[in-house]
Amino acid sequence: MDKIAVWGFRWAPSFAQGLVRDLRVRWALHEAGLPYETRLIGVEERTSAAHRERHPFGMVPVFEADGRQLIESGAIVYAVAKRSAALMPEDEAGRDQTLAWMFAALNTVDVPVQDLFDIDVLHSQETWAQLRRPHVVKAVEARLGELAGALGERDYLLGRFTAADILMVTVLRFIRHTDLVEALPTLAAYVSRCEARPAFRDALSEQMAEYALNTPAAA
Amino acid sequence: MDKIAVWGFRWAPSFAQGLVRDLRVRWALHEAGLPYETRLIGVEERTSAAHRERHPFGMVPVFEADGRQLIESGAIVYAVAKRSAALMPEDEAGRDQTLAWMFAALNTVDVPVQDLFDIDVLHSQETWAQLRRPHVVKAVEARLGELAGALGERDYLLGRFTAADILMVTVLRFIRHTDLVEALPTLAAYVSRCEARPAFRDALSEQMAEYALNTPAAA
Repeated sequence: MDKIAVWGFRWAPSFAQGLVRDLRVRWALHEAGLPYETRLIGVEERTSAAHRERHPFGMVPVFEADGRQLIESGAIVYAVAKRSAALMPEDEAGRDQTLAWMFAALNTVDVPVQDLFDIDVLHSQETWAQLRRPHVVKAVEARLGELAGALGERDYLLGRFTAADILMVTVLRFIRHTDLVEALPTLAAYVSRCEARPAFRDALSEQMAEYALNTPAAA
Repeated sequence: MDKIAVWGFRWAPSFAQGLVRDLRVRWALHEAGLPYETRLIGVEERTSAAHRERHPFGMVPVFEADGRQLIESGAIVYAVAKRSAALMPEDEAGRDQTLAWMFAALNTVDVPVQDLFDIDVLHSQETWAQLRRPHVVKAVEARLGELAGALGERDYLLGRFTAADILMVTVLRFIRHTDLVEALPTLAAYVSRCEARPAFRDALSEQMAEYALNTPAAA
């Protein structure tokens, strides 16, 4: 891969810092040892014609390598993983299992996790959110319990570190404001283990440094 | 691929018939012309030790080919698509784009769609659901508008039919009880075009025939 670029936001409010999804792509690229440059847009540019051209849903990340653009953090991380044994086994069966856990992260786990994030972070003062919260907490607890069961005593979802861990951990970060992960010691240890990886720390500190540099005067 | 098996439910209540996710895998296998057998479990077996062994989240589908099992409909459909030019271009760039739209279906589109399904189908009588509904309808409308914009005048998401269309259409079926898709003529025509494919119709009628055969006396 040559000339890699990753689109992210110039700045994000504190509730979103550390959660914006270009972090997943940066982390994968650091694990793979692939250099890249960032292209930062303002949140208000999301729906601009120029950005819609890159991303029909007006989101980040967008990824560019070898002149070709790609959307969706799951697909981007998989495209990077195909090019690095650091992110995925090279045999077909290992790749299938990695992708299974990538979809588990972005659908089976993310659907209830995003519900709880919506309730607690975006709408906590609303009546519907207060009425709905107990049910959603139970749904997240059930899902996390199943995830902890699947992880068992392994260090990573597939035993060795893979791209699936990048997606699972960055999904679980959306409920960092709760103690639901901490309630499951093996799952909490798994998240800590992943977040202690130099590639994660480098990716996060890079993203945070850009936000710091671009903090609006009013924020 | 040899000796393919797909796990589904023996029977589903009417609100879920036509939505259970093994439909995606059956559809892909029909498009690819790959024969398979089904292994049907009762909904009450989902959390049994035997099924947990196959699927840590107690869901269907589970897929087995060449003695190896795989979970997550997105990953299963991709594994089938890797083995059939009917489901995905064979070049790397085409595969990356197919996977991007598969993740768009199962995360970007499915997250708000599942919210609306929860509200309308599972919790319509609850106060929180009635309070929350207008906001979720707007979120789904926005997402569908962006999807229709991305589709443009093309017959399928990537121009030609791919595995991504299987996931997108089966996600959109979760809001079949609304007129939100019909409100966007090009999107409605796209869904109809996909659902008119013989492989979809065969997969659906097979699944429905199994449910009919296994309808409990009390239902």
